[in-house]
Amino acid sequence: MGLQALRSAAVTTVPEVRALLFDVFGTVVDWRSAVIRAGEAVAPGAAWPAIADDWRRDGYLVPIARIALGERPFEPVDSLLATKLDELLDRHGIELEPPTRADLARVWHRLDPWPDSVAGLTRLRTRYTIAPLSNGGFDLLTNMAKRAGLPWDCIISAELFHTFKPDPRAYRGGVELLGLEPGQVMLVAAHVYDLRSAAAQGLHTAYVPRPHEWGPGATPPEAPDPAFDVVATDFEDLAAQLGC
Amino acid sequence: MGLQALRSAAVTTVPEVRALLFDVFGTVVDWRSAVIRAGEAVAPGAAWPAIADDWRRDGYLVPIARIALGERPFEPVDSLLATKLDELLDRHGIELEPPTRADLARVWHRLDPWPDSVAGLTRLRTRYTIAPLSNGGFDLLTNMAKRAGLPWDCIISAELFHTFKPDPRAYRGGVELLGLEPGQVMLVAAHVYDLRSAAAQGLHTAYVPRPHEWGPGATPPEAPDPAFDVVATDFEDLAAQLGC
Repeated sequence: MGLQALRSAAVTTVPEVRALLFDVFGTVVDWRSAVIRAGEAVAPGAAWPAIADDWRRDGYLVPIARIALGERPFEPVDSLLATKLDELLDRHGIELEPPTRADLARVWHRLDPWPDSVAGLTRLRTRYTIAPLSNGGFDLLTNMAKRAGLPWDCIISAELFHTFKPDPRAYRGGVELLGLEPGQVMLVAAHVYDLRSAAAQGLHTAYVPRPHEWGPGATPPEAPDPAFDVVATDFEDLAAQLGC
Repeated sequence: MGLQALRSAAVTTVPEVRALLFDVFGTVVDWRSAVIRAGEAVAPGAAWPAIADDWRRDGYLVPIARIALGERPFEPVDSLLATKLDELLDRHGIELEPPTRADLARVWHRLDPWPDSVAGLTRLRTRYTIAPLSNGGFDLLTNMAKRAGLPWDCIISAELFHTFKPDPRAYRGGVELLGLEPGQVMLVAAHVYDLRSAAAQGLHTAYVPRPHEWGPGATPPEAPDPAFDVVATDFEDLAAQLGC
């Protein structure tokens, strides 16, 4: 089924949805640009694009996946990221004073939204309860939202359930905190694995691919799964399709 | 120390505070008026003021205190309130259809703020991270905020820690979720016991007595403890004292 067909069907296929939960890194905010910019500010000319990608992949995605699978014990995201940053700085021979290093480690609290994010969320909020459902920490998500003006109704971090997505407990936990049934909630994400994991727990799904998440030379986003309820080009498009 | 002395000292005595946590029922919202109004709408002329007071005291305050002390197992607030409502309706001979009864049981999700609450919180939010720290459920607090326009940065319910205030774990849990130290957080409440319990965990304290919480004929609020950092007449006054 093509994008157009999915789009025109969207408003009528999900009338029972009351709340939208959002993946955050890559879906709502552009982590890569902010990390590169923050790196350039303290050590100009270093290989920051490569460091950003390695930091995201090896300091976040990989350890989080292992924790979600129960292969290693839970550890807060800030701690995972700080450990990996130390390793990457050493590998690249970048020397930073401890306070500068600590501040850079927390750049993930200060990411900027994609250009459509705040406007789209503001429209979606008129009709739905909206919240992040992110592997980022509760304080990270709160700080990010306050700085960027993300108009969440509440903050939900997988850390509240002492695990990470795609552990089923993260999706079920988010739904239960809102006092809803899985079929009343839709996950919005730029990542197919996240949406499939949510769908397996009974949530509805909206795929918003973000082709620039991994920078200009990145592999294009995965094709949508035909089972997804909605496919949108950005949050403004999502709002239009959901009748907001 | 009088109110005026406390007031003038406030801005300079708490410079390290980064976040304000708020008690909600009675402090931010007027539970009594909404309960009476909702009752009148479905069974006019019944003893709603007395029912409201009994509901709040015996269906909420008393069981919550016993749970916080570990004398009975945790039970969500919505469940405690629904059970007590059934008992009170039976005692007063009020017959309601099950959907009407269920809807009335959830009136606590739809309480109105005191007249100064939204304006005061909006000012306070410019300088501080603001969040509820309430015994109300996470979904109740989210629904209430969305309906009433309470501009929280995030929602914190004691239910996240599977206990209730004044259990020390509720205060410490709220501080930890924000990634702060107790001395960087101030509890704002209309209840002396709540503030004393927060202070015992190292939090700063702001007392905002709400003389109308229990209606026109109620006992006046307790005198402030001289150890409280701030005493304010309402949230606008609190904002002014905290330099917002």
